[in-house]
Amino acid sequence: MAKGLPTRAENYSEWYNEIVKRADLAENSAVRGCMVIKPYGYAIWEKMQRALDDMFKATGHVNAYFPLFVPKSFLEKEEEHAEGFAKECAVVTHYRLKANPDGKGLIVDPEAKLEEELIVRPTSETVIWNTYKGWIQSWRDLPLLINQWCNVVRWEMRTRLFLRTAEFLWQEGHTAHATRDEAIEETERMLGVYATFAEEWMAMPVIQGTKTPNERFAGAEDTLCIEAMMQDGKALQAGTSHFLAQNFAKSFDVKFVNKENQLEYAWATSWGLSTRMMGALVMAHSDDKGLVLPPKLAPIQVVIVPIYKTPEELAAISAKVDPLFEELKAAGILVKYDDADHQRSGWKFAEYELRGVPVRLGLGSRDLENGTIEVARRDNLTKESIAIDSVVEHVKALLDEIQANLYDRALKFREENTHVVDNWEDFKAQIEKGGFIMAHWDGTSETEEKIKEETKATIRCIPFNSAAEMGKCVYSGKDSAKRVVFARAY
Amino acid sequence: MAKGLPTRAENYSEWYNEIVKRADLAENSAVRGCMVIKPYGYAIWEKMQRALDDMFKATGHVNAYFPLFVPKSFLEKEEEHAEGFAKECAVVTHYRLKANPDGKGLIVDPEAKLEEELIVRPTSETVIWNTYKGWIQSWRDLPLLINQWCNVVRWEMRTRLFLRTAEFLWQEGHTAHATRDEAIEETERMLGVYATFAEEWMAMPVIQGTKTPNERFAGAEDTLCIEAMMQDGKALQAGTSHFLAQNFAKSFDVKFVNKENQLEYAWATSWGLSTRMMGALVMAHSDDKGLVLPPKLAPIQVVIVPIYKTPEELAAISAKVDPLFEELKAAGILVKYDDADHQRSGWKFAEYELRGVPVRLGLGSRDLENGTIEVARRDNLTKESIAIDSVVEHVKALLDEIQANLYDRALKFREENTHVVDNWEDFKAQIEKGGFIMAHWDGTSETEEKIKEETKATIRCIPFNSAAEMGKCVYSGKDSAKRVVFARAY
Repeated sequence: MAKGLPTRAENYSEWYNEIVKRADLAENSAVRGCMVIKPYGYAIWEKMQRALDDMFKATGHVNAYFPLFVPKSFLEKEEEHAEGFAKECAVVTHYRLKANPDGKGLIVDPEAKLEEELIVRPTSETVIWNTYKGWIQSWRDLPLLINQWCNVVRWEMRTRLFLRTAEFLWQEGHTAHATRDEAIEETERMLGVYATFAEEWMAMPVIQGTKTPNERFAGAEDTLCIEAMMQDGKALQAGTSHFLAQNFAKSFDVKFVNKENQLEYAWATSWGLSTRMMGALVMAHSDDKGLVLPPKLAPIQVVIVPIYKTPEELAAISAKVDPLFEELKAAGILVKYDDADHQRSGWKFAEYELRGVPVRLGLGSRDLENGTIEVARRDNLTKESIAIDSVVEHVKALLDEIQANLYDRALKFREENTHVVDNWEDFKAQIEKGGFIMAHWDGTSETEEKIKEETKATIRCIPFNSAAEMGKCVYSGKDSAKRVVFARAY
Repeated sequence: MAKGLPTRAENYSEWYNEIVKRADLAENSAVRGCMVIKPYGYAIWEKMQRALDDMFKATGHVNAYFPLFVPKSFLEKEEEHAEGFAKECAVVTHYRLKANPDGKGLIVDPEAKLEEELIVRPTSETVIWNTYKGWIQSWRDLPLLINQWCNVVRWEMRTRLFLRTAEFLWQEGHTAHATRDEAIEETERMLGVYATFAEEWMAMPVIQGTKTPNERFAGAEDTLCIEAMMQDGKALQAGTSHFLAQNFAKSFDVKFVNKENQLEYAWATSWGLSTRMMGALVMAHSDDKGLVLPPKLAPIQVVIVPIYKTPEELAAISAKVDPLFEELKAAGILVKYDDADHQRSGWKFAEYELRGVPVRLGLGSRDLENGTIEVARRDNLTKESIAIDSVVEHVKALLDEIQANLYDRALKFREENTHVVDNWEDFKAQIEKGGFIMAHWDGTSETEEKIKEETKATIRCIPFNSAAEMGKCVYSGKDSAKRVVFARAY
């Protein structure tokens, strides 16, 4: 165990914070609620971006860039949207500083007050739909399939690295369509992309479903989501895809001539996934020794550590490692050889465990004699000695195995911690123990809110692929046609 | 000529604006001074980013992310830096809106006033050096070679798409070193990277040199730059690399223990290149028919346009094009087949010319009979008919040829428009005609300012690779050891 790293059992929240900091993923900045994403953390985010961006492009989307600032009047145009975001807006009111006439330093120049305040974008529906008005005239201009990678700001009072920060990085897709059906299809398609990304890249199983009206995006007619279970049994919403109907087209007057030569409002979707996923990645797989990364998102997939006492031993080991390093690299593996001589191999072992490097290869003088190499897996902490000649093939297969194992382990954990509950006493008892609860719900916001008040559990989603099953609401006893997923959530 | 596109001779400035808009690169947004980068423009920027990012990584740099907001007190810490940026700051003063008690809409909540104002970053030296304080303790922590891709805001009063916008996208490198020499070496290395990018990717020749003290970055001890000539003979500063000495380390108290076990301030560099380069790209190569793109940065390198009258003809052409399309793609060429049937081929020809697609392949029924295909070059607008069987090899070589030709053409243009001038009357006459002037300068800010006042020409740089040559200052007649580059500039 890394020195002083709290265990998950002792203090899950502290364990998370310490891993984020010690594995060099991120740290708090001097600006309240804003984080610094450190190079190692950012390298993981870059891999996430690349994977997602490739999937967006493969599904016909292109990137663009829209302004950071939203005029206050834009935010006001869609009522629910305004209500949803007004309370957490960073507001630019002036455009100049000047020397303090009363002494040192700078003050805001009162003569440089903006006529209309600008909001630092909390999301870009308003700015983008105002722009789309100029881009959409005919059905031939549709669909418009655009994504943006950017920063957004939502002024949160209580922040946590990656999970809830005032500024965060994300992508936001904003599409316009000629028909309701096409827009719904797009909303579903992009949720599917998120689910594929979560499961195949992050090795994190997710439940796909629909949010209840209470939990919808401000301005959406329907919000789809993927929900993942963290190791403390809490849920984390990992990506959302919104069907916006014609709400924003109406607010910004975006009409097009359809194939029947009639003027019609365009249909919209938006979908976003943020650096919050970095937090999910940490909490889904890591252990009491530190970060555990799925190979597909690891900036370093394999680290080679020499075990030696004398410079001569190191030279002999390095002579063996150099061609191996090149072979691994040629096989497309992200490999690092750590021959730094001011740290001992034991220190390095702990350090790469802390940083979640999936595979560690250790090579000492005895190995040179025997033609062997030690292969250590980060996921299950097992070690084995294999013939050095077979190491490239072995490692290639092992990385796939680790990726699959992490997924399987997380899925097993979720299944073991998902409980079918049919009465209120059991519900209250179970929610204290954590995990997901599959229970019947009468479909009313009233019941949903009461359950939240009494237990802090929310409906994470109405899952797509759960069978219809008649039952009675776990709280009100009224009829229900399907179970929904309840959990406490991040 | 595209309908209504002004020529360069008629109105260079309008010609530029119209190309940016009509080629779908960018447009003004509803937010004063902020632009929308449209998908086609953003695709070019993405290619620029990828090329630069690869070069940064190849020279040992890693990416990270720092906060959007700079506390006002940070900006105040480095005096020259503060003075340089205070006049163009977007200032966040509040963090919440609320419903207007007197009527409709939202107002800034006066109770949500920030204790300290936050500046939307105009550049990140202050925030980053405040962070580096926690990262740098020993010489072993150095060098720190970090880059950030992000948006920045400088409140400009007069804006132009790409060239001068309130918000722009850029990368900013911020490195810390153990010695002065290492930092200077880094400053030069990164200028070299920018020069390579400009010349090899943008096909835009640049002059590398040093800025005069007047033109230095606020807070730098030395600013290196690359300067390019636009087709109106004006200069455009295309990238800068700053040697910051220990200025920011002193302002933010960043000390490390050197190898001699002494505490010392770290040495800094910063270097940046922005979406302004999109403007340079447009102005360096384009012509009166529209955009001209160097193949290496073109989102579409080859477009195939079918020339037909009947659906049967189109089907026959498409049958021939489909395998050709796949072959071109397999050869790593970005190819598009435009078989849209609601626009005529003539319209398409003009459209792809406007958008600067380097090579257009035209295929009609006569070509099918003859086994030929028409190849049109965007750079010099020539056309030729070649055997269709040889088209893949032909196009591959042609793309390289176009890339080289654009560079050669721009270099020739710069050489023809660079004048050695030795007296003040000639200087004043020449500057009105445009172009670069190589002239002697006495090395004083006073002379530099007077020349600027009288002619609007500035010293673009003191070029690295111009020979020492004794002479007399073109303005003051005082001694000078080297010619410098004068020009009017963007």
